Amino acid sequence: MKPRIHVITLAVADLQRSLSFYRRLGLESPGVVGTEFTGDDEHPAGDIAIFELSGVLLCLYPESELAKDAALGQGPPSATAFSLGHAVATREEVDAVLAEAQAAGATITDVPHERPWGIYSGYFQDLDGHLWEVLWNPALEVV
Amino acid sequence: MKPRIHVITLAVADLQRSLSFYRRLGLESPGVVGTEFTGDDEHPAGDIAIFELSGVLLCLYPESELAKDAALGQGPPSATAFSLGHAVATREEVDAVLAEAQAAGATITDVPHERPWGIYSGYFQDLDGHLWEVLWNPALEVV
Repeated sequence: MKPRIHVITLAVADLQRSLSFYRRLGLESPGVVGTEFTGDDEHPAGDIAIFELSGVLLCLYPESELAKDAALGQGPPSATAFSLGHAVATREEVDAVLAEAQAAGATITDVPHERPWGIYSGYFQDLDGHLWEVLWNPALEVV
Repeated sequence: MKPRIHVITLAVADLQRSLSFYRRLGLESPGVVGTEFTGDDEHPAGDIAIFELSGVLLCLYPESELAKDAALGQGPPSATAFSLGHAVATREEVDAVLAEAQAAGATITDVPHERPWGIYSGYFQDLDGHLWEVLWNPALEVV
C-alpha cells in the first residue's frame, strides 16, 4: 500500500441535512450526485455528496448504503472510533471554528484548551456524531 | 473552516499490534511517540503512532485515550461509521493490496468487483474494524 489516502467517507443518516451542515461550515460541494444509481435492498444506491479538499475527497454517503457497499451489516454509530483533525493558524481560529461548528448544529464535546503535548484544541461532533478536533499546533505552520 | 483535513486518527485497541499491521501493509512510521505524557483516569496519555502520508497524517491512538481527549465516553466500535479510500492505478493492484491486507491480518468484507458507477473495488477491515476501500477508478489518474 502506498502512503496515500484519497478519500474519507463519512456515513450519514440524512444526506441533505449533512450536506447543509458542512456547507454552513464553509466547505463547498456541487451537491448530491450519483442519483442515477438507484440501488435496492441488496445493492447500494449511488447518492453521494463530495467535497474536494486539498489532497483528499471528503464524501458524505448514507450509512445504509455504505453498509451495503462494504457488504457489512449496519452497525450502531460510534463516537470514539476515529477523529478528523483540522489545523488552523492561531489559537483564536480554534475558538472561531468551534463556534462556527456549534452555530451550524454541531455538539462541542470538549471546549478548547492546552494539551500536555503543546497543542491548543477542542472537539466537536457533526450531526452523526463524527468527531473533529480543531487544533493549533505552534510547531506547525498552517497556511 | 478551510477545505483541508490534516489528520486522520484511528482509535485502536492495541497500539503496538495496529502499528505492526499498518507497517506490514507498507506504511512507514518512526513508531510510538509521546510516551512521556503518561495521563491518568481523566487525562489522556500521549502514546501515538504517526504515519506521514502524502498530504495527511494517519495516526493510531488508543480508543480509551481518544475518548478521554475528546471528553466523551468510549463508545462501542462501529463497522460502518466511515471508510477510508485508497486508490490504485490498475485493477490488478486492487486485488494485490487486498491480498496483502488479508495476509497482514485484515478481514476482507467485500471481494473486489465492478460497481455500477464505474469503479472496481473491494473492502477490508483493519484489526479494529475500521473500513478501507481499495479502488481503481479508470477516470482517475493515480501515480
